[in-house]
Amino acid sequence: MCEANAYLWKDGEEKMIFENVDRVQPHEGGLLLEDIFGRRLFLEARIKELALVDHRIILEEIEKE
Amino acid sequence: MCEANAYLWKDGEEKMIFENVDRVQPHEGGLLLEDIFGRRLFLEARIKELALVDHRIILEEIEKE
Repeated sequence: MCEANAYLWKDGEEKMIFENVDRVQPHEGGLLLEDIFGRRLFLEARIKELALVDHRIILEEIEKE
Repeated sequence: MCEANAYLWKDGEEKMIFENVDRVQPHEGGLLLEDIFGRRLFLEARIKELALVDHRIILEEIEKE
């Protein structure tokens, strides 16, 4: 299976935030992640980088204005 | 390997635009895609949806203002 793990990048470090991610949908104000079991998580974040062969989705928080 | 294929969604249809994508990096004005062979493609597009288990990256063009 080609799910990936989602990491939140903050202050130069990555922290795993959600595992086994299948789907990612950008929405107004953030991202909706869905894992292979159908569990969903909405984050006020955007995609910083995908590295699919490494099963990695790197996210960064959206700066508050 | 868990690379994906990138499809451009336009007028209700999807067209494959780049195969074997490993990395995706959002940049000002678009996305930089890199395939597993190191080939790169810059597109004036944004991510519409990821469906990793299906090896699919759906993109949509950025509207010109």
